[in-house]
Amino acid sequence: MNKRGILIVLSGPSGCGKGTVLAEFFKSHPETFYSISATTRSPRVGEQDGVHYYFYTKDAFESLIEKGGMLEYAVYCDHYYGTPKAPVFAELEKGHDVILEIEVQGAFQVKQRVPEAVMVFIAPPSLQELRLRLEGRQTDSQEVIEKRLAAAKKEIEWASKYEYLIINDQVTLAKQRLETIISAEKLRVSQMKEEINEVLKNA
Amino acid sequence: MNKRGILIVLSGPSGCGKGTVLAEFFKSHPETFYSISATTRSPRVGEQDGVHYYFYTKDAFESLIEKGGMLEYAVYCDHYYGTPKAPVFAELEKGHDVILEIEVQGAFQVKQRVPEAVMVFIAPPSLQELRLRLEGRQTDSQEVIEKRLAAAKKEIEWASKYEYLIINDQVTLAKQRLETIISAEKLRVSQMKEEINEVLKNA
Repeated sequence: MNKRGILIVLSGPSGCGKGTVLAEFFKSHPETFYSISATTRSPRVGEQDGVHYYFYTKDAFESLIEKGGMLEYAVYCDHYYGTPKAPVFAELEKGHDVILEIEVQGAFQVKQRVPEAVMVFIAPPSLQELRLRLEGRQTDSQEVIEKRLAAAKKEIEWASKYEYLIINDQVTLAKQRLETIISAEKLRVSQMKEEINEVLKNA
Repeated sequence: MNKRGILIVLSGPSGCGKGTVLAEFFKSHPETFYSISATTRSPRVGEQDGVHYYFYTKDAFESLIEKGGMLEYAVYCDHYYGTPKAPVFAELEKGHDVILEIEVQGAFQVKQRVPEAVMVFIAPPSLQELRLRLEGRQTDSQEVIEKRLAAAKKEIEWASKYEYLIINDQVTLAKQRLETIISAEKLRVSQMKEEINEVLKNA
């Protein structure tokens, strides 16, 4: 029997470098499953079902909600977005860890439904640094940047409700911190019931 | 200001190799403080106050108990044994981690008084392995070994009330697991309040 994997719920403001940290992480942990969201919006050019999103009809999405088949969901611009429970649980059962990258509200919905989920927040070293990163992208107007910064500040205020905080001062360090958290969570007594029984077997 | 250290409460049955794991650990972490017990029994030949034990008079020990100055204590063979709070807290304040090696009852007394203490249990890979180790020492009679094994079994049944479990299958791995636990505990949001404030400063 495989040992059940760990479910990591990861949040962090836009521009904090989550994506880069995760890309580095997955290079060394290809067996870890990156949870894919479901949505009722139409696929854009190049988007594939089961790769970028699971594309559901409104009926299918609502029926899953009713059956308790969504770990979390929200409505955005008249479309549903959410995390189907089945693929996540299937991977956990196989013994694979699962990373669910998700915004704050969704994160707490997941924690409510899966209390053993490990809540990790990634933050930039400072809001000044975040401003520099957003300005450095040269894709957003000053107005958009100010909005993003205000949103980031609000999100970071939620960090204290998470279980772990990773400051993304250096990508390699941030990736190692994520690895450390996952390794330690595997040593939790709640994850080691079988090992305790094994130790006690046949004295 | 120093970041407060982590208090690790470590238990495990006699013969599980705790001592060897800790010796390896302290080689790489000389700054970590190994908490010394206090006792009212007389020093044996070669024992030094503040090295092997803090040697207290009965009055001094009881007065500390009354003032809430003991993290835990017990009476054994008509003598008090316990952990004075002051040196442990002084080291934590300095930012040093503290390891308190202690049996199960004392461990839970500490957790009650210091809820943020991290409870770690070290177990042998199996009771058979423990039997082999105890027999290999060739210091105890078969009767003593059976008693130790029965005691170990009882202790290991408490493991599930701890927070982390380290199986000491290999000393180097067990030491690394202890390091992982401590590193992850330093990433806990409760340990990172200053960092969160720092991130939010001057947007």
